[in-house]
Amino acid sequence: MKRTVLIMAGGKGERFWPRSRVSMPKQFLSLTGDGRTMIQLTVERILPLVEMEDIYIATNEAYRELVRQQLPKVPEHNILCEPAGRNTAPCIGLAAVHMAARNEDAVMIVLPSDHLVKDNDAFLETFKEACEIAEHENSLVTVGITPNYPETGYGYIKYNRDKKFKSGYEVERFVEKPELEKAKAYLAEGSYLWNSGMFVWKVSTILKCFREFMPSTCEGLIKIKAAIGTKQEDEVLKREFLQLESQSVDYGIMEKAGNIYILPGNFGWDDVGSWLAVGRIRENDGDGNVIQGNVVAVGTKNCVIEGAQKLIAAVGLEDIIIVDTKDATLIAAKESAGEIKQVLARLRETDRTQYL
Amino acid sequence: MKRTVLIMAGGKGERFWPRSRVSMPKQFLSLTGDGRTMIQLTVERILPLVEMEDIYIATNEAYRELVRQQLPKVPEHNILCEPAGRNTAPCIGLAAVHMAARNEDAVMIVLPSDHLVKDNDAFLETFKEACEIAEHENSLVTVGITPNYPETGYGYIKYNRDKKFKSGYEVERFVEKPELEKAKAYLAEGSYLWNSGMFVWKVSTILKCFREFMPSTCEGLIKIKAAIGTKQEDEVLKREFLQLESQSVDYGIMEKAGNIYILPGNFGWDDVGSWLAVGRIRENDGDGNVIQGNVVAVGTKNCVIEGAQKLIAAVGLEDIIIVDTKDATLIAAKESAGEIKQVLARLRETDRTQYL
Repeated sequence: MKRTVLIMAGGKGERFWPRSRVSMPKQFLSLTGDGRTMIQLTVERILPLVEMEDIYIATNEAYRELVRQQLPKVPEHNILCEPAGRNTAPCIGLAAVHMAARNEDAVMIVLPSDHLVKDNDAFLETFKEACEIAEHENSLVTVGITPNYPETGYGYIKYNRDKKFKSGYEVERFVEKPELEKAKAYLAEGSYLWNSGMFVWKVSTILKCFREFMPSTCEGLIKIKAAIGTKQEDEVLKREFLQLESQSVDYGIMEKAGNIYILPGNFGWDDVGSWLAVGRIRENDGDGNVIQGNVVAVGTKNCVIEGAQKLIAAVGLEDIIIVDTKDATLIAAKESAGEIKQVLARLRETDRTQYL
Repeated sequence: MKRTVLIMAGGKGERFWPRSRVSMPKQFLSLTGDGRTMIQLTVERILPLVEMEDIYIATNEAYRELVRQQLPKVPEHNILCEPAGRNTAPCIGLAAVHMAARNEDAVMIVLPSDHLVKDNDAFLETFKEACEIAEHENSLVTVGITPNYPETGYGYIKYNRDKKFKSGYEVERFVEKPELEKAKAYLAEGSYLWNSGMFVWKVSTILKCFREFMPSTCEGLIKIKAAIGTKQEDEVLKREFLQLESQSVDYGIMEKAGNIYILPGNFGWDDVGSWLAVGRIRENDGDGNVIQGNVVAVGTKNCVIEGAQKLIAAVGLEDIIIVDTKDATLIAAKESAGEIKQVLARLRETDRTQYL
């Protein structure tokens, strides 16, 4: 079986400001404290299953250089730069036609570039099996995360526990981000998993789905595919891609298709959604603090402190996030981590775009 | 009546770190937000009562240049540099012999360099009267602050409400910093004032007191006085001053002397003892925040934020002090403001003295 991987790395996440910037989004940051960036960890994690030459990175022109620097072994022509963000369906379609140009029978693994996994072996086992299901059944496969609390920020996927193939279950339906009460009910019910945005299918299978469920997108993709390797490649890509409907693969394909399997992923997954996650992921100092850099902390508990050059002195703090960078310092209550985007809005309003 | 002033400016306060440093203590900082430093405000405040040439600044060699820069009109020979810190008694004695060398009959006002006063007119009225009492009675006069809460960080002075001369009362006794219960009792009793460290006496009176209560200090002072204006002045000062007993004027003289008057000071006094005071003194933004500099605050209440060059983004904070400087940023809970000195201790232990 030929396996290929698409790593989606076009995101412009604002939640890790001021470390993340428009010019340096989360997937290119090291947040675990070991020096490797999120996208580097993602490549290393999946590498036992694929050849380096079969790893594709979807991003945009602004981040091409970052991808080159951080992943020098990924072949240049595997860095796919979308002319504009069009959500996940066109992104996946673009990668699929590139993969199909080389091998239509390959199995395609789709991964976000900015998630973390604790147990890489379990992760690989799950994806190996997902690939087998995708190949044998010509099905769409997704890997869901077994929920351990009623998160309202994720979508859920309901599966049929009586219809199983290997470790995969047939998917019954996709559920949008629920209210808390519904999320609790899903957990109690036991046959719901978090939608992690990780997929596995044969290249030919997903292209068939585009033809069936997103026909106009499919037309554009066919034109893009025909131009691959020609002088017109860039020009055609730009013209056709910009006309594609902005759509998620969940809504555009998964919610409409049948024959979908889901595998429960139990490999210590974390989407590292905000600075709060850093407090969870990294080892703390016994007082619940995760501290690095030039920091002196006195009487301080459960804080995340990312120092840079400047000395940061923390005194008597609790549940506070401090992130220092060259030109900006964030100090936020943990419970207000979600409001960091208001800072960015304020900076835009007051024309201080150099900090974005 | 000839009035002279001694402004004591040798302190190395650590409580305003990181704005205050060993090389830049509190009295040389602007903390009110109007650009003038504490010592500049002190001079301006007393100036209606004295000539500029009769203002003496006691400090040490390390701060001579700061005094020169901030108070260019104070005559050079009125800047008295103590060879080492010996507490307030030797400091006052040194100034007294310098003043006596010009006019032994002058009245001497002693002021800290780092306190604030809201009502300057009331302040001047009080000190004018204090000077009259000091002159007519040859007494030691102190100005006490009418307490409005049971502060345990100040000394108290008990006066006799039946023995009055003008607005001054005879002092019964000096009381060390009390426990909270005692402080409450003092407030209830009504004839206790806070010891503010502000004094008024004739130069001849205080020198007599040195002779009587601190005779060995007096001997040293006499030698220093004899050398004033000679080539040996610096050498004698250094030799004699270093031998003086380190002692506060409160303990060395005031607690032993009779004929002490106290005037209640009701002029909006604040000793600006910590960053907390800055939150009290400056106008707030309606959410209780006192913010200046390059700051974006979102959902933030009752905070003191002193920005510098770098952008400071505060999100969801309450009762936090943030002070940014070129090389260090302090983030402290208001209730832990007193623990800033632990940061300095830690910096000393870890040999990061560049931040002190």
